[in-house]
Amino acid sequence: MNSIPEKTIGRLSLYRRLLNRLRAEDKTHLYSYELATLAGGTPARVRRDLMAIGYNGNPAHGYEVEGLIESLGHFLDTPQGQPVVLVGIGNLGRAILSFFTGRRPRLYIVAAFDSDPAKVNRVIHGCRCYPMQELPETVRGKGITVGIICVPAGEAQPVAEQLAAAGVRGILNFAPVRLHLPGNIYVEDMDMTMALEKVAYFAARKPNNVPGK
Amino acid sequence: MNSIPEKTIGRLSLYRRLLNRLRAEDKTHLYSYELATLAGGTPARVRRDLMAIGYNGNPAHGYEVEGLIESLGHFLDTPQGQPVVLVGIGNLGRAILSFFTGRRPRLYIVAAFDSDPAKVNRVIHGCRCYPMQELPETVRGKGITVGIICVPAGEAQPVAEQLAAAGVRGILNFAPVRLHLPGNIYVEDMDMTMALEKVAYFAARKPNNVPGK
Repeated sequence: MNSIPEKTIGRLSLYRRLLNRLRAEDKTHLYSYELATLAGGTPARVRRDLMAIGYNGNPAHGYEVEGLIESLGHFLDTPQGQPVVLVGIGNLGRAILSFFTGRRPRLYIVAAFDSDPAKVNRVIHGCRCYPMQELPETVRGKGITVGIICVPAGEAQPVAEQLAAAGVRGILNFAPVRLHLPGNIYVEDMDMTMALEKVAYFAARKPNNVPGK
Repeated sequence: MNSIPEKTIGRLSLYRRLLNRLRAEDKTHLYSYELATLAGGTPARVRRDLMAIGYNGNPAHGYEVEGLIESLGHFLDTPQGQPVVLVGIGNLGRAILSFFTGRRPRLYIVAAFDSDPAKVNRVIHGCRCYPMQELPETVRGKGITVGIICVPAGEAQPVAEQLAAAGVRGILNFAPVRLHLPGNIYVEDMDMTMALEKVAYFAARKPNNVPGK
């Protein structure tokens, strides 16, 4: 087991994305303070995060962009890639299919499932859609360990249990409900309603034109 | 200024949603341990969170569902409601329009904006779409303080600055990039790529059938 905290993993993923963008702009080196500015943190935290994966910058030139991207890949990715399934082909599910299609070479949605017969047996944004009853066989057969849940709140718990029973070990949950699963299943909630209500709460209470949080 | 931390606000929003579902099932009272189980926390934290808004349960009957929903509403909502604008009418923007339409009576998307002339001057999921150049006037004219950003990473920063300049004080940011804004603007990031990479990382490393995180 790895002892690096969840939040660090999230930031390493962010650093890689920022570095990929810099590489596309032909930048070859950068300092921790530059990465910190882009990522919204402190240079000390950037250095600590990267030291955790065994990467140290050079005091004169900073970090080497190409090499750092490679080290992050070694750390974050599995060599064989990770196929993903998505459950719930509504508006949100479709948007997520389109969002992730072709974005990450090692992390790709290979199948989508829905209980509505009208939504299955076709290809949406390059992804094949199947009826729910084929989920266990597909997930087991392909050795899939990552699932995305986009079904309504009331259906999320049984869907999560089906995924877990078939071998899924990590779930990205867009349903506005907390899932109850064994401790060996990692769940990340993307709760859009909660996020918007938080933003609205602070927007109503932030004094105009007075900086400081 | 209010001193309740961000995470508490998020949980209060979650409690309200859970309570609304219970009310729909005709439940009239519940104990802190029940709410804690649904929300994925401890009873002590539930009691502390609700005490922060001045609400105490009754040792014999627990919390009164109806009264607690009302108290949470007084605390979280502004009496006049909060109109919201959305920028970026791609697949994700459309999914978000559909997701939030008609969901929260006091928090509703009143206008969407896009720089693509082909996407504007029509109604999508009940929301009117306008060209970007009308954003400042609309936001100022309607006194809008909440914005949702769904544009590509490269366009997010200038869009955020336009929103802030027009009076927006809280932003829900779906663009995979960190925004740099004055401290009086509250930003909540919904980074789907980072979330999926985190899930994939832990899914690959969670031992099968061994509970415990």
